[in-house]
Amino acid sequence: MTASTALLLADLLGVAVFAASGASAAVAKRLDLFGVTFVGFVAALGGGILRDLVIGETPPLAFADWRYAATAAVSSAAVFWLHPQFNRLRTTVLVLDAAGLALFTVTGTIVALAAGVPAVGACLVGMLAGIGGGLGRDLLTGEIPAVLRREIYAVAALVGAVAVVLLDRTGLAGPGPLVTAAVVIFAVRLVALRRRWSAPVASDRSGPSR
Amino acid sequence: MTASTALLLADLLGVAVFAASGASAAVAKRLDLFGVTFVGFVAALGGGILRDLVIGETPPLAFADWRYAATAAVSSAAVFWLHPQFNRLRTTVLVLDAAGLALFTVTGTIVALAAGVPAVGACLVGMLAGIGGGLGRDLLTGEIPAVLRREIYAVAALVGAVAVVLLDRTGLAGPGPLVTAAVVIFAVRLVALRRRWSAPVASDRSGPSR
Amino acid sequence: MTASTALLLADLLGVAVFAASGASAAVAKRLDLFGVTFVGFVAALGGGILRDLVIGETPPLAFADWRYAATAAVSSAAVFWLHPQFNRLRTTVLVLDAAGLALFTVTGTIVALAAGVPAVGACLVGMLAGIGGGLGRDLLTGEIPAVLRREIYAVAALVGAVAVVLLDRTGLAGPGPLVTAAVVIFAVRLVALRRRWSAPVASDRSGPSR
Repeated sequence: MTASTALLLADLLGVAVFAASGASAAVAKRLDLFGVTFVGFVAALGGGILRDLVIGETPPLAFADWRYAATAAVSSAAVFWLHPQFNRLRTTVLVLDAAGLALFTVTGTIVALAAGVPAVGACLVGMLAGIGGGLGRDLLTGEIPAVLRREIYAVAALVGAVAVVLLDRTGLAGPGPLVTAAVVIFAVRLVALRRRWSAPVASDRSGPSR
Repeated sequence: MTASTALLLADLLGVAVFAASGASAAVAKRLDLFGVTFVGFVAALGGGILRDLVIGETPPLAFADWRYAATAAVSSAAVFWLHPQFNRLRTTVLVLDAAGLALFTVTGTIVALAAGVPAVGACLVGMLAGIGGGLGRDLLTGEIPAVLRREIYAVAALVGAVAVVLLDRTGLAGPGPLVTAAVVIFAVRLVALRRRWSAPVASDRSGPSR
Repeated sequence: MTASTALLLADLLGVAVFAASGASAAVAKRLDLFGVTFVGFVAALGGGILRDLVIGETPPLAFADWRYAATAAVSSAAVFWLHPQFNRLRTTVLVLDAAGLALFTVTGTIVALAAGVPAVGACLVGMLAGIGGGLGRDLLTGEIPAVLRREIYAVAALVGAVAVVLLDRTGLAGPGPLVTAAVVIFAVRLVALRRRWSAPVASDRSGPSR
């Protein structure tokens, strides 16, 4: 297996996991088969589509390579039919989701740098590639995006994206260091889940909110 | 009347109908004249804007040809002032909406193929061109998109887009077959409305949702 | 200070103000520090990102020039920590927000015209540049966009964008007239706030909505 095949497989695994998370949220909202598949598609491919639109890569990879859409569709449909079993895999899903976040953030940052986006912008693009799908999933299902209010999620992505840019700027962005960056995102996210870490919330204010 | 004039007129009819559906939803939410027009604009032109951004056609047609925006604005404003009468036209609107869905899906798929998007991607772009406006309308008015949970709507679009791609790949994509594909989408949608067909919903689960 | 430095400073002031408005809404929703910063970022830069995607300018300025993201982040974080004091500055914020609206609308329209977007499209792009950030802020925080239902806001932007296009078409688009257009948007918005002007709402209908 070559490096690029390995990367494609890893990428498609990320797509499958994110599609499953989106489909799972859509099943909970009682959407029909199409709705479940569509939300799964957005959750899996939304981050990458956002990334490609921002760097001017059209059509985005999700439309240019059929294997992405096919993976998202199969994964979403599987959740639709198997969701009771899927719910029992909750911990597995959270772990795989953390892996997907790590992968998409690192590849998103690399793609942005390769497209000539400056350092700060590349960090933002990488983070959006990681969290964009979850944002789309929550907007479609009528929720305030979970990524905006729960635990260390986007922060893990942002830290990883910064690490990738620093590696790139110091000429160290070989496969080893990049995998390390992905592992760091993955680990931070898992530890945050385990310990229920959250970013701080503004101190309470008197009276009802708003 | 030339073929291209006929196509433009059909396209603008689709814009007018979708704008009316968006404006109608916005009136129900008690938005002001501007809000109604804006939601109408998004409902009418959102699908095409999405299509053009994905294929890298900038500025999107909705911004490049003033007749699109003007049609959407006039149609939305008409609903704003005439909405009680408009509500009585509910069946007419559903029929016209099905026609708009058929038209935008077929033209969206053709445009994507012409821009070099591969087969599966072109189907997705065509479907998004058909349903994108309705998605935008529902997101702006704070609803979970109806297209994700009601009846055969996006599925009709998807089937039509696949048909267009197959016609194109077999060299049969002349005016006749394409019109046939549009008629198929239109008919599937109408029959689904008439018989209240829906895509399946996942079997009920014990306990409260989520 | 050169004209382009002055313009950059004004632009960054607009970013800071819009970020503060987004962060303020996010604090009210009890989002964490990251969520507050993210909503502030979207409120400040969303309009410009939309503008740049529509005209095909990739990566959008918000990703290409780090000072934009840095300004938005600092401003959002400041609101997060200082929000009780910030709330007391409510009037100041509304005034600054009107200034940001005026500025982003005028620059958005000019940028669209310079990119070759026709007159009507340029007005729409200018208006979207002005109101896009507020739309994104409200979608992320689960609100029907305020711009769609409150007071003369987008209408002020649209009027200003039309004025800029007319000035451009008549060859009068020098610094003086453009500043005048911005002042007009600013003034219309402030008077609308002061007098609680609104665009009309459709007359009441019998029975419950929908």
